[in-house]
Amino acid sequence: MSKPSLARGTRDFGPEQMAKRTFIFDTIRRSFQRYGFLPLETPAFENLSVLMGKYGEEGDQLLFKILNSGDFSGKLTDADWQAGSKPLTTKISEKGLRYDLTVPFARYVVMNRGTLAMPFKRYQIQPVWRADRPQKGRYREFYQCDADVVGTDSLLCEAEIVMLLHDILPALGIKDFTVKINNRKILTGIADMIGAHGMEGPLCVAIDKLDKIGKEKVVEELLERGFASDSISKLEPIFSLSGENDPFTELKSWLAESEVALKGIQELEEVWAMVKILGLENAKIEFDVTLARGLSYYTGAIFEVKANNVQIGSISGGGRYDNLTGTFGVPGISGVGISLGVDRIYDVMEELNLFPESQKTSTKVMISNFDEEAFAYGLSILPKFRKAGINSEIYPDSVKLKKQLDYADRKSIPFVVLIGSDEIQSGLLTLKNMKTGEQQKLKTEDIITLLNREDQ
Amino acid sequence: MSKPSLARGTRDFGPEQMAKRTFIFDTIRRSFQRYGFLPLETPAFENLSVLMGKYGEEGDQLLFKILNSGDFSGKLTDADWQAGSKPLTTKISEKGLRYDLTVPFARYVVMNRGTLAMPFKRYQIQPVWRADRPQKGRYREFYQCDADVVGTDSLLCEAEIVMLLHDILPALGIKDFTVKINNRKILTGIADMIGAHGMEGPLCVAIDKLDKIGKEKVVEELLERGFASDSISKLEPIFSLSGENDPFTELKSWLAESEVALKGIQELEEVWAMVKILGLENAKIEFDVTLARGLSYYTGAIFEVKANNVQIGSISGGGRYDNLTGTFGVPGISGVGISLGVDRIYDVMEELNLFPESQKTSTKVMISNFDEEAFAYGLSILPKFRKAGINSEIYPDSVKLKKQLDYADRKSIPFVVLIGSDEIQSGLLTLKNMKTGEQQKLKTEDIITLLNREDQ
Repeated sequence: MSKPSLARGTRDFGPEQMAKRTFIFDTIRRSFQRYGFLPLETPAFENLSVLMGKYGEEGDQLLFKILNSGDFSGKLTDADWQAGSKPLTTKISEKGLRYDLTVPFARYVVMNRGTLAMPFKRYQIQPVWRADRPQKGRYREFYQCDADVVGTDSLLCEAEIVMLLHDILPALGIKDFTVKINNRKILTGIADMIGAHGMEGPLCVAIDKLDKIGKEKVVEELLERGFASDSISKLEPIFSLSGENDPFTELKSWLAESEVALKGIQELEEVWAMVKILGLENAKIEFDVTLARGLSYYTGAIFEVKANNVQIGSISGGGRYDNLTGTFGVPGISGVGISLGVDRIYDVMEELNLFPESQKTSTKVMISNFDEEAFAYGLSILPKFRKAGINSEIYPDSVKLKKQLDYADRKSIPFVVLIGSDEIQSGLLTLKNMKTGEQQKLKTEDIITLLNREDQ
Repeated sequence: MSKPSLARGTRDFGPEQMAKRTFIFDTIRRSFQRYGFLPLETPAFENLSVLMGKYGEEGDQLLFKILNSGDFSGKLTDADWQAGSKPLTTKISEKGLRYDLTVPFARYVVMNRGTLAMPFKRYQIQPVWRADRPQKGRYREFYQCDADVVGTDSLLCEAEIVMLLHDILPALGIKDFTVKINNRKILTGIADMIGAHGMEGPLCVAIDKLDKIGKEKVVEELLERGFASDSISKLEPIFSLSGENDPFTELKSWLAESEVALKGIQELEEVWAMVKILGLENAKIEFDVTLARGLSYYTGAIFEVKANNVQIGSISGGGRYDNLTGTFGVPGISGVGISLGVDRIYDVMEELNLFPESQKTSTKVMISNFDEEAFAYGLSILPKFRKAGINSEIYPDSVKLKKQLDYADRKSIPFVVLIGSDEIQSGLLTLKNMKTGEQQKLKTEDIITLLNREDQ
């Protein structure tokens, strides 16, 4: 007899967690819709030809691969067996689990580009899977909430993402946050400026860590990555940019000779201006020239959102990419996207105690079950509650009232209707408030009115 | 360059299908909640020790298995390689994709039985995966919507399932349906009666097909399965039960000597009585002594729901099981469950044209983009729409109006706000109804009022 357990790095979500997670998903979904994004869902698994080579070598390793069905090993040769796990994988596995929502989205756009109305704005809220080593706050199954616009290079999209974040996070109760923004073009310009043309990739990876490991270690890493000391010393302004009030003036004079950097700065200034016209006073946006977000496919704006005064790091990130579908043979589709991490947001909300107390999705009232007669009477009342839209149930067995009330209590049911012979005779039911212990005798209709008012 | 494709048997759900599917999910979820069921979600993959041996040999074959990460082949011996795919699988795969929602639910109950308030009523709406051969209407990834009560043997649960189905299906617009009910105990009694004690398993499998293949073929199959002709001839009453008005009288006299069959009949009569007290007039329930639903773990009531006058077969099924958690070493937890097949329901609703036309989740209004000045003006209007809860967007690029209107049209956006220099000067915006072509000049606030009224 097997004692069952969860697969490593996965979780069940019971009723209480589900209520909280649903609150997050619903809030995000509502905002996505209000901004004109339409829903998309893609399959949990994709052909490995779609997934492999899109996330770097480490990503390829972290893909969960599905064993081919049937006799997968029959046709393999000794050489296949002895070749090692990596080449062998390609012989016995053709499918893998979704690793993020971006590559499946790119596949969808390529496959449906003939019929999609461009620009195409889609949101997607689904789990992804990564064979990472599980640790605190890192799971092998987790949800992503993505919104992307493809098919336009209008900077409106960047401004809308800033707006969207200012819509979603306060609606979740997260009021103290910062949307950090950078532009890949500025990083490209800096690489040029310090005589390390084309090296903004490794440059990004290193300076992205400034927040975490400090200037000294970043310099070390840059040396290791092959940057000349001369180049590195030219980076000094990056470490000392103040730019509290006017983020761009200093930078513009430093990078005056780099056309591409100035273009990046100009783009950001336009986004700033549009956000202002969109009416966002005191936007919580901050230019951060060290922001690079590791990923190398961003070509314009780069976003990252941090909840302030909590332990948890970034809760959202994104940016503009100019070649989403290039790996599928369809170049030139530009897009901007943002991804929200539900698990991180959940942890922030727990830490700050932001979840609303009453969850409308749980049971509102339970009818007790004294004996056969009272049960039958209760059965005739129950449909009236439900017709009025009230989540309700009747206790299924005639057991001791204490046990029934205990059940209601553990299920956080706020009201119990007690029915005995008195109640049946008078038609006045006893409504017990489980929080206060208060009881009152009421007609069924009045109970309905009271319970529905409670929801306001 | 790879030309991307979907993995076999899987589907994307674009905006239009998502709107329809969301309507189904929301309707089902709302009903589940109104009946006091609480949400649960379990991981997409489970340890194979949890899944294997629960679905019969065919089920074991149809489980999608996940290849172990890292160097899965390093420690294998020549003997392992040569043993064939089945034994080899156990060496290189430890996890599998969820095959249904019942086994993960049983695992959850066993792992959490110390803290769950019993009876535990949960619903679960998630995809499942089966390595079946794909064909029309059969996919390798599909959603199930399950509601189960465990921890009580009260027949109220059976009655509530009948009620629940009468709640959900009409809410979806499916008004012509039949809830077929049988009881496993009756089938057990019949096996006893015809001198085939303990053979209700194969008996069920055969007579379950009566609807599909007819009496003659069923008799043939019974012979093949080892039933004596003598036993089979005693089955005659089954093929001729009328029971239109009173389903049980005939059966009771036929099975008068079988205690277990009479118990089964009595249980069904109680369910019938409770449904009546619950106020369901003209309940669309029908006793069907041939209903067995293949699966052998039902011990009491068996349900199946058919939408009438459509091609599609059953859209829901379920029943009572007395040993859900037995395979995990925890015997004696009784439960009743029902599972709704979203894909089947979707097809029925398409065939009967039952989807509501307006989907509140899509974009309601688009602001046009004539030139820079009009765009800035539009940007200042946009947040007002969103603050009023109206799904809205502004066209990102200053291209020809025709192209913008075409975009709105393809995205089924019902209203477009046209802004030019006239509109900016007067403050009266032109609201175009995309369906009628009608245009009117209105203040922003009046547009908001009009659009919000449209949603009523």
